[in-house]
Amino acid sequence: MKRTLFVVVSLLLAVVALSACGGSGQKGSTPAAAAGLPADALAIATQRGLTPDDVSAALKTYLPSGKHDDYYLFMSGGHSGNVIVAGVPSMRILKNIAVFTPESWQGYGVGETDTERILDAGNVDGVKIRTGDTHHPALSETNGDYDGQFLFINDKANARVAVIDLRDFETKQIVKDPNIISNHGSTFVTPNTDYVVQGTQYATPLGWAYAPLSEYKEKYRGLITLWKFDRTKGRIIPEESFSIEVPPYWQDLCDAGKLASDGWGFCNSFNTEMAVGGNMQGQPNFEAGVSQRDMDYLHIFNWKKAEEVVKAGKTETINGMKVIRIPTAVEEGVLFFAPEPKSPHGADVTPDGKYIVVAGKLDPHVTIYSFDKIQKAIAAKNWTTDEFGVPVLNYDDVKLAQVELGLGPLHTQFDDKGFAYTSLFLDSALAKWKLGGDDPNAYQLVEKIPVQYNIGHISAAEGDTVSPDGNYLVALNKWAVDRFLPVGPLLPQNEQLIDISGGPMKVLYDMPMGVGEPHYAQMIKADKIKPWDIYPQVGWDPATQAPSKYATKLGEEKIVRDGSNVEVFMTSVRSHLTPDRVELKKGDHVKWHITNVETAKDATHGFQLGGQGVSLSIEPGETVSFEFDAAHDGTYAFYCTEFCSALHLEMMGYVTVEP
Amino acid sequence: MKRTLFVVVSLLLAVVALSACGGSGQKGSTPAAAAGLPADALAIATQRGLTPDDVSAALKTYLPSGKHDDYYLFMSGGHSGNVIVAGVPSMRILKNIAVFTPESWQGYGVGETDTERILDAGNVDGVKIRTGDTHHPALSETNGDYDGQFLFINDKANARVAVIDLRDFETKQIVKDPNIISNHGSTFVTPNTDYVVQGTQYATPLGWAYAPLSEYKEKYRGLITLWKFDRTKGRIIPEESFSIEVPPYWQDLCDAGKLASDGWGFCNSFNTEMAVGGNMQGQPNFEAGVSQRDMDYLHIFNWKKAEEVVKAGKTETINGMKVIRIPTAVEEGVLFFAPEPKSPHGADVTPDGKYIVVAGKLDPHVTIYSFDKIQKAIAAKNWTTDEFGVPVLNYDDVKLAQVELGLGPLHTQFDDKGFAYTSLFLDSALAKWKLGGDDPNAYQLVEKIPVQYNIGHISAAEGDTVSPDGNYLVALNKWAVDRFLPVGPLLPQNEQLIDISGGPMKVLYDMPMGVGEPHYAQMIKADKIKPWDIYPQVGWDPATQAPSKYATKLGEEKIVRDGSNVEVFMTSVRSHLTPDRVELKKGDHVKWHITNVETAKDATHGFQLGGQGVSLSIEPGETVSFEFDAAHDGTYAFYCTEFCSALHLEMMGYVTVEP
Repeated sequence: MKRTLFVVVSLLLAVVALSACGGSGQKGSTPAAAAGLPADALAIATQRGLTPDDVSAALKTYLPSGKHDDYYLFMSGGHSGNVIVAGVPSMRILKNIAVFTPESWQGYGVGETDTERILDAGNVDGVKIRTGDTHHPALSETNGDYDGQFLFINDKANARVAVIDLRDFETKQIVKDPNIISNHGSTFVTPNTDYVVQGTQYATPLGWAYAPLSEYKEKYRGLITLWKFDRTKGRIIPEESFSIEVPPYWQDLCDAGKLASDGWGFCNSFNTEMAVGGNMQGQPNFEAGVSQRDMDYLHIFNWKKAEEVVKAGKTETINGMKVIRIPTAVEEGVLFFAPEPKSPHGADVTPDGKYIVVAGKLDPHVTIYSFDKIQKAIAAKNWTTDEFGVPVLNYDDVKLAQVELGLGPLHTQFDDKGFAYTSLFLDSALAKWKLGGDDPNAYQLVEKIPVQYNIGHISAAEGDTVSPDGNYLVALNKWAVDRFLPVGPLLPQNEQLIDISGGPMKVLYDMPMGVGEPHYAQMIKADKIKPWDIYPQVGWDPATQAPSKYATKLGEEKIVRDGSNVEVFMTSVRSHLTPDRVELKKGDHVKWHITNVETAKDATHGFQLGGQGVSLSIEPGETVSFEFDAAHDGTYAFYCTEFCSALHLEMMGYVTVEP
Repeated sequence: MKRTLFVVVSLLLAVVALSACGGSGQKGSTPAAAAGLPADALAIATQRGLTPDDVSAALKTYLPSGKHDDYYLFMSGGHSGNVIVAGVPSMRILKNIAVFTPESWQGYGVGETDTERILDAGNVDGVKIRTGDTHHPALSETNGDYDGQFLFINDKANARVAVIDLRDFETKQIVKDPNIISNHGSTFVTPNTDYVVQGTQYATPLGWAYAPLSEYKEKYRGLITLWKFDRTKGRIIPEESFSIEVPPYWQDLCDAGKLASDGWGFCNSFNTEMAVGGNMQGQPNFEAGVSQRDMDYLHIFNWKKAEEVVKAGKTETINGMKVIRIPTAVEEGVLFFAPEPKSPHGADVTPDGKYIVVAGKLDPHVTIYSFDKIQKAIAAKNWTTDEFGVPVLNYDDVKLAQVELGLGPLHTQFDDKGFAYTSLFLDSALAKWKLGGDDPNAYQLVEKIPVQYNIGHISAAEGDTVSPDGNYLVALNKWAVDRFLPVGPLLPQNEQLIDISGGPMKVLYDMPMGVGEPHYAQMIKADKIKPWDIYPQVGWDPATQAPSKYATKLGEEKIVRDGSNVEVFMTSVRSHLTPDRVELKKGDHVKWHITNVETAKDATHGFQLGGQGVSLSIEPGETVSFEFDAAHDGTYAFYCTEFCSALHLEMMGYVTVEP
């Protein structure tokens, strides 16, 4: 009797909790209320010391309670190894997506079987790697436009690439390049996401082999790797991927051709000096050694041709990866160079695909190359060669224009009105300049505004696509110094939202970023992303995006013992876990599966078991697994770590381990 | 010659970079500009669909570029195991502080020797624990007021407490309670931070021993543990700490007495039913079993008396911790109970220390207890006892008043005008009510506003102190459902900033929190926190807050080989690491120290070495260490992971491991 009563009470509470969450919650103001200014607007502005510009910026960025932003901003987290998702223009952080580093809240790589396996696929030579340095996120594209289906991101520190599925915003795959140790010019995708491309940063002997630095030129190499992506499977297919060998210059940023230049790709490089450091052996520091030449090499590669070369079997397989060696690449017309000033950073293709903008870094210009001129120079075979036999086109044959912008040009984005925007690191400024088509004289600096401070990459709305939006640009500033409340010697960075909708550019919002070092970002129209609210069916395995073989239905929970192997099939629902007692013997090996049978949006349950270092997040419909050895006798508590209902604290159970 | 030239160029670039960061950066508007509204304010508001209330809220929360917030908000990250720091009223995130979980960006527990040691101190029975469930942050106090020096936080999942030093916002210590498995009523501090207190959540046999659930009443117990804090050392001293044994009711939230009630502490409890689950054995779920009684027990303990009892040696030492057993606690007048309705959550002491507010959770009231009445009841010895012999004061003797607020009262905070605020989970609402002093009839509900959705804890400005500020309150709402752009089945929570400065309460700002599940927060006046800009001297060890024995000066870098043991003493400065070549042999064991010799604010360098899973953050002046076995021959790159200068990409070096 009593039991029935309390079950009824619990259900009632759950119903009340649910009804409170039906999305019909009242807002501070009703949506139907007329727009207008409050009578005390001036008084508030005065009291808070807001200038008219501040008031404008406040109104342009404020997101009323319950309304949604216009854009998603996907930022790499830098050496936090993750991706951070924010809304624009509010600049509020919507989600952390764990990628190369474990994250306890979302139950990623903290004991959960599937995500540990995803991370382990990125281990290096058997060394467990649980860190990373995410750099350049790339949204999947269809016809050169973001399609909102997948996101790719690289780990520069270990030359890895990850695949994130935007149906559930979770990492599904990590692949490790078997031949290089660091990548930087990645990820970027070809216009239909046939390939996810990465370029080496620091050259090493292929296959992580040993070679002394005295043999740098002979044995160290870079690679441009084209990871084949299967959109249906949502996975990179390593067996269908390949690399193009390049000289041991340090390749930097890359971009894919599109429209006019579809089928081609472009990477900057520096250290064409092939400096090898040795600052304790009386040689120059790398920073000096790699900055000697006034010109480096823009790498121009024909990936459609490379695809044919691979199909024709003209590759060498190194550590399981097909590699087009340099002589083959040269012979087959896959690889060309063009001179570029000086240790440049960004190589960015204009929306129409006709021009490539190279930002000089140690040269105050952006240099604009014409793809048409490049094609003509190649056809004319008018080139010299570098030490590795790679054709070097004549600078004057391929360069269309230069615009002097200022100190430290790094990276360029585009808007919908024919303007380009380039970050200036040393100036701590953003430059706006006009694209000029085929007329070199029409390329003109328009305006510069200061940013705070040391700007790195920039991200404009749909700024990497064939049809940029304009409207907003985010400056990813590396130093914040005094901009925010002090938080000790390690400071946040400063993402500044800049109005580029027309008229003079204006900083609208300073967003401190103290949960990583965002390196680069992409901004996509909100309506292009269509995530799942809950998993498609109860008992879902997000690792395969298919029903789980461990799915457990309500009433079918069980504990199966086979000798010292114990398997637990558990369900979670507000507000209990079934079974709530797991009786083990010391020495048991335990496999434990939990199915969250909830079907209400946001009804996630978490799970931790004291003393076992396991943290799970079980979204509505999801089935997750973990395993452990009951190495010690004792009594342990497990519980739901999400505040899921009024009886959340009561959602627990005990594990007893008998000696 | 060439080398000199490039060093000069590099220095010049560094100087330019520095001068750009001198804090004199231009802002969107000059600070001297007059306040006022822009001419197009109404047009912007109309275009963006802002109501007058929205405009008010926008102006009240917008932080102009370069200005600072009024308050710091320290939020637990929940099962992300960390602490998140934001500014109020802008609600922008300033920093993630890694505590129980490794964090790659800040180089915490990702191979770095000192932070791995701090984390290892929290291991359990030899099991490496790298997760946690942070719940209740507590700022250190002086005379009952936040002093801005330290922050404490518990890990509910493993009964651990961490110490964070607010000079550098870094975790310095983790202690593990050796006798219990989960804590919840922690951390809270005594008014001068003599003790950091924690209460058990789920009872277990003391010392993590085994006992079947059939022996629950006999063998399972809770503890109230008082961790002694040494402010000078900035450390908890386990040898001077002690526990008070309590019955196997599940203790919940606690608070310390202050002013009138200084020397005392208060914890709620539930499961005074001593239910033991067994939902696959035909017994009620825990949620039903622990919710049967209409009244549970408010635990009232005299910690100053307990201190004397410990000094008198009337303790039993269990697993190295002094424990006052229940009979001693009873005999010595350390522990009393008072009935409280029903499975309550918050036990919150009013700013004057005279009253304790208990939020009923399964009862629609808050119940106000008078400390004076409690003292009189104790003096009169007018009590019954529970099954464990603990005195249970008469409810009517100690209860002063009740206020009916609504469904699911959870947690109460206070302002400077005599009002209290209580979260209502099931109502998804915030209640404001009037404190009435000694007059029971003066306690009155004033106002309720809806929040979105499922509110848990609340945090008012200085709301846990003897002198609350009012002004702002943050509602930590557990479900966001439809409030933000969708991000898959795992949704952010919703922190809502609420104006409590006077007049009707208003929601000012919705802050999605997608980097954890903030459980509780404390809000402190910004000028109380005085962090270091850089470490006090070059060669600093943050783990000891003293000079490091591995500090390395510029020009004194070295690599020392002793057989197969190799020790590297490296420096980092824009834009090189010295040495930039580390030549190893397979099988070497390597200890590697890096000193960041920078003294400019924000000149942090990061460090990753490909293939070794190490991530370091080296703030200006800091010396850090890591070690590894060169298990594989090969060629590896290391580099600075912070975008520290225009020549950041060039700040690298090679490790070669000869076969």
